[in-house]
Amino acid sequence: MTEPSIIIVNSQQQTSLPATDRGLAYGDGVFETMKVAGGDISLWHYHYERLLDGLQRLFIEIDPQAFLQHMNTSIESVRQRQQMHPQEQGVLKLIVTRGDGQRGYMPTQFEPATLISIYKPLPDTFFNENEDRQQNGVGIHICKERLAVSSSLAGIKSLNQLPYVLASRERQTLAAQEGLLLNNDNHVIEATARNLFLVKNNVLHTPLIDQCGVAGVMRRLIIDIVAAQMGVMVKEAHITLSMLKHADEVFLSNSVSGIWPVVNCLVDDVDQQWLVGKFSRRIQSHCHHFRLDENQSLTSYLSSSTPLSPSPTSSGKN
Amino acid sequence: MTEPSIIIVNSQQQTSLPATDRGLAYGDGVFETMKVAGGDISLWHYHYERLLDGLQRLFIEIDPQAFLQHMNTSIESVRQRQQMHPQEQGVLKLIVTRGDGQRGYMPTQFEPATLISIYKPLPDTFFNENEDRQQNGVGIHICKERLAVSSSLAGIKSLNQLPYVLASRERQTLAAQEGLLLNNDNHVIEATARNLFLVKNNVLHTPLIDQCGVAGVMRRLIIDIVAAQMGVMVKEAHITLSMLKHADEVFLSNSVSGIWPVVNCLVDDVDQQWLVGKFSRRIQSHCHHFRLDENQSLTSYLSSSTPLSPSPTSSGKN
Repeated sequence: MTEPSIIIVNSQQQTSLPATDRGLAYGDGVFETMKVAGGDISLWHYHYERLLDGLQRLFIEIDPQAFLQHMNTSIESVRQRQQMHPQEQGVLKLIVTRGDGQRGYMPTQFEPATLISIYKPLPDTFFNENEDRQQNGVGIHICKERLAVSSSLAGIKSLNQLPYVLASRERQTLAAQEGLLLNNDNHVIEATARNLFLVKNNVLHTPLIDQCGVAGVMRRLIIDIVAAQMGVMVKEAHITLSMLKHADEVFLSNSVSGIWPVVNCLVDDVDQQWLVGKFSRRIQSHCHHFRLDENQSLTSYLSSSTPLSPSPTSSGKN
Repeated sequence: MTEPSIIIVNSQQQTSLPATDRGLAYGDGVFETMKVAGGDISLWHYHYERLLDGLQRLFIEIDPQAFLQHMNTSIESVRQRQQMHPQEQGVLKLIVTRGDGQRGYMPTQFEPATLISIYKPLPDTFFNENEDRQQNGVGIHICKERLAVSSSLAGIKSLNQLPYVLASRERQTLAAQEGLLLNNDNHVIEATARNLFLVKNNVLHTPLIDQCGVAGVMRRLIIDIVAAQMGVMVKEAHITLSMLKHADEVFLSNSVSGIWPVVNCLVDDVDQQWLVGKFSRRIQSHCHHFRLDENQSLTSYLSSSTPLSPSPTSSGKN
């Protein structure tokens, strides 16, 4: 049975927010979904940088001190809870909206941003199922829903997520565990909640996320750090269904569920199959327990005196 | 000064909703923005049909009786208020979301839809400004933000409205009163909160809304009824900037603010100008006080015994 959630709105324990918030009205905001174990957020710095990137691209300003206080309150509540349930792991969803709204699309800039944290423990069923998927791989399908080109929103996790809702819904009547999303040019972009990687001749290939799609933090970890650790090259490129079909190995990445090898997918009416290969196993062992440097940890951030100074990232939207 | 709003959530007077609602999490829902005067909603039937179309295309199911009760409660509160302020006109925003959410994009179908009504009186400044715009026309600009092709969402008013927020924001530093949105093929689709019409040789032209854009209810009124009343032809077609430049008259339609003639727009660095012509004046006199048939009124709907039977509409997304 699922334990009740912790919900914090603007540093306060409360479960609701005004019906007039622009996050609801227009999906006017961004979010992060972060794994919390032992009171610590995995890959915090990457989540934080993507959040800041999203806020900047949507021109949403947040007060650094209010944000710091909100994160402090949120993580403190989660830590107290996890200390009482030491085995518990959970997901902290952080939503930042442009704040309470007046009439009309145009932002007024008078209202402070709304900060929302929703923590839910991962249920036991998640771990059993996820372990199975990591070990034995998953079957996927090609979604009918297509991703639209939108350079304003490409890469970030905005609250405009209907394409992913509609794409995920297609799976309700299928045996597949994930769905691949293409753009209107038939390029493969990502899965509904995961990024895609192909292995071909020991080179990693992953779709460009410059026109649409979400640039996952686990994807960034692989590109920025893990590939180098493994001594392999990563190419961010257009990926066609033909490249998918001819890949040696295929896997999906997500910061909560880790690396899922892909074992089959119906492509052009052919049931394409892949083995869970050595490459996927190596990626898993590198990714599943990776921790960023101490100075990129949540603890370091929480004790920072300049919490929101934008850190120039060479990798941009990754 | 703006009077306080009326807010009703699931037939109850309350101002907030759970932070876990899917409307906030993913923009997973639709909305309508409807003018209310004398306790009656203008063009109710068109709003209602577009709402149903949106719900159907997002696979959101609502309980007909719950919806009827919610609309009854909402309009009753607004009527009581407008009886006390007989000159007051306002806007009723109706939001329907897929309901409270579990973890993940995939809808669970266990939660009932959330129904939200937000009524705000139109301030005096609105009427003065709007009267001026109807009489003297408006200046517009071409937005940098582009509309993405999404056949799943084209035409409906979903809660995924970030492109309109970003496009409207461009106007903050401009003298223009509206902005035109193009798609990635450089076709003109609409204004940020209005549909576009061109007059050329006494024929009306308006952009196709089959790939992106919102099919406004005032647009539908013009296409379905007003054009025939005026004895003119309407063509829904791809509209290029060249067609815009060479139009005899240009105007924008919106169900709350009516018909705004367009008097100038910077197109390809040329300050294009149009006069407010006879055609625009005739359209205004037809549209501004139009009422649908009694059997398409809100009162007729509220007394209906089968409130949600989908009525087959020949005009589809219009």
